[in-house]
Amino acid sequence: MNVIIIGGGAGGLSTASNIRKYDDDAQITVITRDKNVAYSPCAIPYVLSGDVRNFDDIIMHQPEEYLERGIKVLTEAEVLEIDKDQKTIKYILTQDKMRYERELEYDYLVMATGGAPFIPPVKGANLKGVFTIRTINDGLKIKEWAEKSRKAVVVGAGLIGLETAYGLKKMGLDVVVAEMVSQIVPRLLDPSMARLVQNYLEKEGIRVILGRSIEKIIGSESTEGILLGDEIIEADLVIMATGVRPETHLAEYLGCELGKWAIKVNEKMETSIPGIYAVGDCVEVTDAITGHPTQSPLGSTAVRQAKIAAKNIVGLAVEVEPVLNATVAKIGALEFGAVGLTKSVATHNGIFVISGKKRALTKARYYPGAKRIDVKMVCNLQGRIIGCQIVAEERVAERVDTMALAIAKKVTCYELVNMEFSYAPPVSMVIDPIILAAENACEKLEEIGG
Amino acid sequence: MNVIIIGGGAGGLSTASNIRKYDDDAQITVITRDKNVAYSPCAIPYVLSGDVRNFDDIIMHQPEEYLERGIKVLTEAEVLEIDKDQKTIKYILTQDKMRYERELEYDYLVMATGGAPFIPPVKGANLKGVFTIRTINDGLKIKEWAEKSRKAVVVGAGLIGLETAYGLKKMGLDVVVAEMVSQIVPRLLDPSMARLVQNYLEKEGIRVILGRSIEKIIGSESTEGILLGDEIIEADLVIMATGVRPETHLAEYLGCELGKWAIKVNEKMETSIPGIYAVGDCVEVTDAITGHPTQSPLGSTAVRQAKIAAKNIVGLAVEVEPVLNATVAKIGALEFGAVGLTKSVATHNGIFVISGKKRALTKARYYPGAKRIDVKMVCNLQGRIIGCQIVAEERVAERVDTMALAIAKKVTCYELVNMEFSYAPPVSMVIDPIILAAENACEKLEEIGG
Repeated sequence: MNVIIIGGGAGGLSTASNIRKYDDDAQITVITRDKNVAYSPCAIPYVLSGDVRNFDDIIMHQPEEYLERGIKVLTEAEVLEIDKDQKTIKYILTQDKMRYERELEYDYLVMATGGAPFIPPVKGANLKGVFTIRTINDGLKIKEWAEKSRKAVVVGAGLIGLETAYGLKKMGLDVVVAEMVSQIVPRLLDPSMARLVQNYLEKEGIRVILGRSIEKIIGSESTEGILLGDEIIEADLVIMATGVRPETHLAEYLGCELGKWAIKVNEKMETSIPGIYAVGDCVEVTDAITGHPTQSPLGSTAVRQAKIAAKNIVGLAVEVEPVLNATVAKIGALEFGAVGLTKSVATHNGIFVISGKKRALTKARYYPGAKRIDVKMVCNLQGRIIGCQIVAEERVAERVDTMALAIAKKVTCYELVNMEFSYAPPVSMVIDPIILAAENACEKLEEIGG
Repeated sequence: MNVIIIGGGAGGLSTASNIRKYDDDAQITVITRDKNVAYSPCAIPYVLSGDVRNFDDIIMHQPEEYLERGIKVLTEAEVLEIDKDQKTIKYILTQDKMRYERELEYDYLVMATGGAPFIPPVKGANLKGVFTIRTINDGLKIKEWAEKSRKAVVVGAGLIGLETAYGLKKMGLDVVVAEMVSQIVPRLLDPSMARLVQNYLEKEGIRVILGRSIEKIIGSESTEGILLGDEIIEADLVIMATGVRPETHLAEYLGCELGKWAIKVNEKMETSIPGIYAVGDCVEVTDAITGHPTQSPLGSTAVRQAKIAAKNIVGLAVEVEPVLNATVAKIGALEFGAVGLTKSVATHNGIFVISGKKRALTKARYYPGAKRIDVKMVCNLQGRIIGCQIVAEERVAERVDTMALAIAKKVTCYELVNMEFSYAPPVSMVIDPIILAAENACEKLEEIGG
């Protein structure tokens, strides 16, 4: 069995590893344009901040390590042509700066083409000192440029934008974050919870400007600033963190059906063309709450999908679960995360909801080092939990996971208040903040009911 | 409505607070022998270790604060007589060193009498320098004695014994822990997981002796050591952490039915005598997995039971859930916890099980400060998860909570491997160690099945 995988990110390489796990004999080839494989793109900002020493550290594996397991990884290779009837693929291989055309046959093809940064069509986007952030190469170039810069603007207050802003701040730059809508991380948090994150960034000395669009980037050769509404923000470094679009060109070329957001796949991660699978940021997923198509550009999602695709390719019938987008981020000392729908998104989808809120502590009140924790739980009018947002300086990630499980298992706030949570003074409160938020949700539902 | 609650620990005071929450008019009186109320007994070792500055810090509330909410708390008071037909209670009140006899009527009586340390009948147990550890007063006396001591033996390697041993070590004493059975924390962890905790304690300079019983305590006026098998362990301080027995004398006196372990209550937390409730360490609970009666001497359990008792007393019919004993502890830098059954306990109960194990990291491999984490997941032969044990230097408590929810919702290891967990390099691995342990469990079940 020949399997060709296009893309060397989390989705592509996990598919390769999983196929090998279940099938000793499969011929597995990974083709990627990137020079590096198996690195964690979400770790790039941590190299800027100095939390991780250098870009080499975030590369988990080298192509040679895959070869030892019989997985051929071709880097700096470009797909030229695919014949889906003959099941052949032509590609360009670069070796010692020479380019060679090669051809391979496949039984299964997996598209793990990821996403590409989206840049809005503003004047000056091609000036020097203007960057997107996606690959290690981007990170290297940003770091080099930042070392001789003083003022940076990050356009876009999504997770990658904020993490990059914090990294640049730690490098010693003046940093401004400019976001078009009226809050930061709008896909992840409701306004009141986003405000807590914003407060932290501002406390760290990052200026956050909301509700204004970038008009243009100013400068002759390299950037000198951006025009934001009618204010000029000086900047010798501009990061365009204005979103990522699924990379679907190859799928379109092959004639795979696209959905509203990206490549359409069935529950086996197979595209509309039998034998051609797709995983990772380039595919569309189903939202577990709304049932509607959505996106899930998370490494953890790619890895889960890869396992499903691999199992189906080797003949083990398994189906992918709809997603809750369990997400966590850490910026400086602040950890925040969410799972399921925000109140805003739920309302936008026509779901009536209430939200239980609680501000509490991460340890017993008297225990030194207890941190504030804020929990917001979104429930529908039957009490079913459909979302949860958490902001604190510690112990957020696993609480997001607990809530992911609660949402997946259709737990209500009425049930959750009676659930067992562990307790010890140095690590928790005797009644967990999650339970307290669920109690608040129950009270609000009673108020409505009465 | 008059409610009298006997006992001022987590169970008693939470019952009082919850009744007040649902009923503005109830007359609520709490009677306790202790001088202090509303403190966290499990925090006493942290005062010894210096992590918490002093014993006053661990007192969460003063009696006056309860009085503001219309809850009368009588400290240093002793129950003299209860007439369950007339529904009256006579008690001795101590005020300005004078003792007064008082009488009160009740509609509902709540026993929250807790537990009392159990000391095996060994010679020398009444020598000076031999202590049990349960109340703040015990803590004060231990601290005072420890300050002039050099060598301590802690008899019993349960959680409170180990935490106390670590506290004494931090105070500068030579510390030996002596445990009768062949492992530490036998109720909580299986031998291989307990060994990880033991390794940590030994690394911290605490000697751990297993599989030997204390024969006697040696000394003329105060302790000079203990005889352990045929070895004499020198000690000018001995802590008898040999277990806690439910305090059921009052319940027996009243004629409440006792179970195998403690006071028997129904799902409303009511004893066999209508109108008399019981909560906390003095009651018997139902194990969620085996369905058998068991004990759950945890503050978190007491607080949950208190809510159920209070709601039923004010006329809101709710039922208590069987317990999973979700437990976490932190000793020095090491956090460990468990929920559900260990493999040993499951096997002892005639349940055939396999266990999935994984040693992994708490952050991305390349992220500085990643700690080792060990997970052991116990599943029955249908794959249902019935227990989980976790040892790591961080992020254990919330993982125990996630697993508590998984066990309560009857999740199988097959389901868990497809569950969504959040990921960010500074706080997790792209595939959570819990998922990896579940994968290992699935593999073991497949091996058996094949």
